Amino acid sequence: MASRLPVVHLYTYLAAPLQESLHKLCPGMAVVKVVGSNFDTYGLLPSAPTPEDVAALQEAEILVADPNLMPPLMHKLPQLKWVQSTWAGVDSMLKHLDKTKPLPSYTLTRFGGVFGPAMAEYVISNIVNRERRAQKQWENQRNGVWDRAGDIHNYRPLTMLSVGILGVGDIGKDIARYCKTFGMTVWGVVRRELSQDKRSPYVDHYRKFSELPEVLQKCDYICCVLPSTAETKGLLNGNILESCKEKKSVFINIGRGDVISEETIVNAIQSGWISHAILDVFETEPLPATSQLWKMPQVTITPHVSAVSIPSQVAEMFYDNYQRYVKGEELKYIINLENGY
Amino acid sequence: MASRLPVVHLYTYLAAPLQESLHKLCPGMAVVKVVGSNFDTYGLLPSAPTPEDVAALQEAEILVADPNLMPPLMHKLPQLKWVQSTWAGVDSMLKHLDKTKPLPSYTLTRFGGVFGPAMAEYVISNIVNRERRAQKQWENQRNGVWDRAGDIHNYRPLTMLSVGILGVGDIGKDIARYCKTFGMTVWGVVRRELSQDKRSPYVDHYRKFSELPEVLQKCDYICCVLPSTAETKGLLNGNILESCKEKKSVFINIGRGDVISEETIVNAIQSGWISHAILDVFETEPLPATSQLWKMPQVTITPHVSAVSIPSQVAEMFYDNYQRYVKGEELKYIINLENGY
Repeated sequence: MASRLPVVHLYTYLAAPLQESLHKLCPGMAVVKVVGSNFDTYGLLPSAPTPEDVAALQEAEILVADPNLMPPLMHKLPQLKWVQSTWAGVDSMLKHLDKTKPLPSYTLTRFGGVFGPAMAEYVISNIVNRERRAQKQWENQRNGVWDRAGDIHNYRPLTMLSVGILGVGDIGKDIARYCKTFGMTVWGVVRRELSQDKRSPYVDHYRKFSELPEVLQKCDYICCVLPSTAETKGLLNGNILESCKEKKSVFINIGRGDVISEETIVNAIQSGWISHAILDVFETEPLPATSQLWKMPQVTITPHVSAVSIPSQVAEMFYDNYQRYVKGEELKYIINLENGY
Repeated sequence: MASRLPVVHLYTYLAAPLQESLHKLCPGMAVVKVVGSNFDTYGLLPSAPTPEDVAALQEAEILVADPNLMPPLMHKLPQLKWVQSTWAGVDSMLKHLDKTKPLPSYTLTRFGGVFGPAMAEYVISNIVNRERRAQKQWENQRNGVWDRAGDIHNYRPLTMLSVGILGVGDIGKDIARYCKTFGMTVWGVVRRELSQDKRSPYVDHYRKFSELPEVLQKCDYICCVLPSTAETKGLLNGNILESCKEKKSVFINIGRGDVISEETIVNAIQSGWISHAILDVFETEPLPATSQLWKMPQVTITPHVSAVSIPSQVAEMFYDNYQRYVKGEELKYIINLENGY
């Protein structure tokens, strides 16, 4: 039986630990390990794939791959039936689709199911850190100072706060659930009206994107989880954030950096529309050393780590999909290659 | 009707905002404001109460008070029937009870119900900060460095972590509920065996204090929520934390500082039994400038703010109890003056 299981190719900087996890889950799965070398900490190859790697990948029927490694290969893999992305976001791959060619016939699935809880941890801890002035407290500790003045003592607990989540899909719903558990008032902004059965019980108020100003006016925190697609690019650019000026909301971006320009964020802070920005994603990553965001005290920067692909979790999710594939069932977390989500 | 409501005395550094909140909740409540002046940021009076204040308080039937202001008054208030503490912990008051005198006949209630969620915020955000190396990330930002190396990228999400909560009463149960929502494995350590109906569904494993070593061996985080009583004083002193050495657990103390000595914490860190201590409470508060804890990189210090008494919340809780008092019903969050909890 085991020998009949379809072979899996790996093309990811997580290949070694992933192979180990997959072997534990399914000892009969034949894994062909195909990796480049010298990945940087961002999981990028220093150069294009070697001819040997390309030749090996051209045999692949099932491929587990980092999407940022895929651009040179997308239209070149004739045997490919299914690509499982190791990341939740696949825009780094899809934006390089050659639109003069027919859409590839393989199925693309994203890494789903676990990014939501990880991102919710990030959101909750960053909100608490902001409200309680954690950075100031650490500075006090370094200086040996016991200081309970101001917001360190007079902070707002989460029960007094509201959050507007922009993009209430798989991940946004998880964030809503955690925020609601902590007693926050949760607003959800969706691109298309949702039928009642698709709504989350953890979202108090649903609004459409056309109603965004109302949400910006009412929420202490605005949390953007939008993926990068043709529809979302630059969606928050311009003066939209002016609606935050009453609440002086804090803007959190854990979706994709191209939804809002750096210029827009800097202007929203300098105009006093938002009091702070917590940014995990940027138009250009790594964020260039020349960016003025680095030195702004109203900005918290993290290096695109609000959720990360943990090999054991990627293995579990892939193995679940792999069993579906073997049985001929529909895969989970399929991406529409045309609209990108 | 309104004129028949019993009069309330306030003796707290929150008096002004509390009076405002109470007036909104119950315009007919007659509040006699009795406050000292020049409170420090810790809510302490610079000197003993004035004879005028004492005389005014001797008329009080119902008193809302900061427990740290009560020691000189505890046996001197003949009309007193009920004291509502503005704090969750009342040890600063009870440790000054004169045991040569009969126990006071008034009822003491603590501030209950909202410290749990606030402390849970503190616990979750501090765990996430620790796992994701938030302090290092902020240092990187100050230096303009985009760095995803080490644990900043390879962190453990909460779903992979276990927490042992020492003291699973009102507050501990709330912490358990939040930790469980975030997918942690939750161990609860109780001083007395609990009947099934008193157990929390959010605690995976209950253990008695005699079984503490097992919990210390199995948990990534140890969170102490114990109040200060004759039973808990010094309870964690000595070599008990040696059982943490396999997991190199992180020790969190948000209960009371006298449950464990500074010497014990320093030794547990220097012996490599625990990898870090997150401390909000200390044997002496404010933590003296001479304490070696300030400069230890394995210690995170916060100035007793994991939960704070927010006037509007104190007012709501007191008003709920006040209505019970007026109707002759049993009050909530009553403290047994003999055992202190």
